[in-house]
Amino acid sequence: MSRSDELTVIERYFRPLAGEGAFDLSDDAARIVPEAGLDQVITSDMVASGVHFLPDDPPDTIARKALRVNLSDLASKGADPFGYSLNIALGPDVTDEWLAAFADGLAGDQKLYGIRLLGGDTISTTGATVVSVTAIGTVPSGRMVHRFRAVAGDYLYVSGAIGAAFAGLELLVDPESPFHGLDAEKAQNCMMRYRLPQPAVALTHAIRDYANAAMDVSDGLVGDADKLTAASGCTGTIIFDDIPLSEGLKEFADGPVAQRLITGGDDYEILASISPGNAEAFEKAGLSAGIPVSRIGWLAEGKGPVQVIKDGRELALGDRAYVHREQ
Amino acid sequence: MSRSDELTVIERYFRPLAGEGAFDLSDDAARIVPEAGLDQVITSDMVASGVHFLPDDPPDTIARKALRVNLSDLASKGADPFGYSLNIALGPDVTDEWLAAFADGLAGDQKLYGIRLLGGDTISTTGATVVSVTAIGTVPSGRMVHRFRAVAGDYLYVSGAIGAAFAGLELLVDPESPFHGLDAEKAQNCMMRYRLPQPAVALTHAIRDYANAAMDVSDGLVGDADKLTAASGCTGTIIFDDIPLSEGLKEFADGPVAQRLITGGDDYEILASISPGNAEAFEKAGLSAGIPVSRIGWLAEGKGPVQVIKDGRELALGDRAYVHREQ
Repeated sequence: MSRSDELTVIERYFRPLAGEGAFDLSDDAARIVPEAGLDQVITSDMVASGVHFLPDDPPDTIARKALRVNLSDLASKGADPFGYSLNIALGPDVTDEWLAAFADGLAGDQKLYGIRLLGGDTISTTGATVVSVTAIGTVPSGRMVHRFRAVAGDYLYVSGAIGAAFAGLELLVDPESPFHGLDAEKAQNCMMRYRLPQPAVALTHAIRDYANAAMDVSDGLVGDADKLTAASGCTGTIIFDDIPLSEGLKEFADGPVAQRLITGGDDYEILASISPGNAEAFEKAGLSAGIPVSRIGWLAEGKGPVQVIKDGRELALGDRAYVHREQ
Repeated sequence: MSRSDELTVIERYFRPLAGEGAFDLSDDAARIVPEAGLDQVITSDMVASGVHFLPDDPPDTIARKALRVNLSDLASKGADPFGYSLNIALGPDVTDEWLAAFADGLAGDQKLYGIRLLGGDTISTTGATVVSVTAIGTVPSGRMVHRFRAVAGDYLYVSGAIGAAFAGLELLVDPESPFHGLDAEKAQNCMMRYRLPQPAVALTHAIRDYANAAMDVSDGLVGDADKLTAASGCTGTIIFDDIPLSEGLKEFADGPVAQRLITGGDDYEILASISPGNAEAFEKAGLSAGIPVSRIGWLAEGKGPVQVIKDGRELALGDRAYVHREQ
């Protein structure tokens, strides 16, 4: 199956996704009329075939992943989704059928998360398909949540559960992975979680209301906790047994892969630093939003990487963060 | 020469470029506090190695081109540059030396055009290097210039000169091109113009004040005029001899490549539709801004592609627009 030219691709697949201010993608740019009393939060992420998704992944999940990794950033800043622009470099294998499914995925997520397409660019490349999204969200003036405002004495929380996406990636690319011991349904869930992040958008207002600092967990829980504490000028402790491992993965908690679950990528959960006085309210807000939050440790004065305690001892970790590499 | 890891790349080369609201790229997102009375104009363009620039092009011109193609869109909408986000997929050949020169190019253009880096993402790919920019500009409320508001009876104007970039590309990739007949200095100018567009940013306010409709000329003058008239529900006429061909290219005006000069890509000039009553003021504003504008035709009621008249007859054109393809 072949591919239509770029103008046809835009007209056929992307024009139907254009929201208010995008002029049906028939202008050179979109217009935003900012609402008084709101600040904007801008984030950009790029995903590439073979690095952040696999060439054979379903195109609708590729589209959703490209959008959701950005939605995850917005949620961690306390920002409500507003709009996004989409630039794609289409590799030689991309067909009209692929594009139709890709656009369907975007349409579904636009409805699900209340975000509109503002514009973009479509080009052809002989290399890997690359999808670049810039997303814009809004917060009430001055209410953006930062990575660098955590305070020693805060509790460290994480949303949802950790590890499924990393296990899913191993299942997809490593025939020797111990996660092949998972039963079929749990294995399927892990692979789906790798392909299709579940950004904690429902937690956005709880983050905005209660977090001193927050960031999304995309490159490994431990390494991202290091980044949050380093940005805030403090250090911290994580209690391994308090980390909410994804369903089916608790059985690996005492094995050699346990460390990789908490340093592997693609969780797209939120790490939040919460004053002890706000902890109860934050936990309740998480439950109301349908996204449980777990207290996994605390922040302390000092410098240097976060220590992870297991069975009363500090875990010696090799890699602390996940680096997205060609698979 | 090798390449540092992505975090080091960001810290070393991109952090120094971060502007107000970008938090030294140490947060997950940037913040914009919109100014009352201004609308925002958002545009996105992607350039890929081998398609929009050549793999051996100097990295500083690649960076500038990626930014300038977006600045050209903003100018054509009457929008002043504000900020941009930058996503790059780095191919295997990209070294630290390359990145240092790339960042230098951005730094130079940030000063030249008054635009700040807001954030972005850096990933690695085994394919072609791809640079994706989303640029944000501002206009006074309601003053964005559109592609679709041209009126039959308007004069059609183009800024600067047409053809040099296309001739430059031919000089770079086609040993048989007739443009090899140019003297060395003119040939050099053409190649430089391909690598380094000169967006008509200085014309921004003239466009905003006088144009009924405008767009930038990136995919060939004739095809872009077709797009402007189609979007506005009219048609038009261009007088070939009134098209301002770039220096040195007038000698080709009667040869077989003349048509390709007015349908080739990468001019990054502005096409504007001006009411006759505003024509004189627009021309004066262009001279004041240091960018002469040329009246090349007019718009008329009707449908269908713009006709190009040469020596009293309609030119039969093959391709009307330029398609960026792998070189």
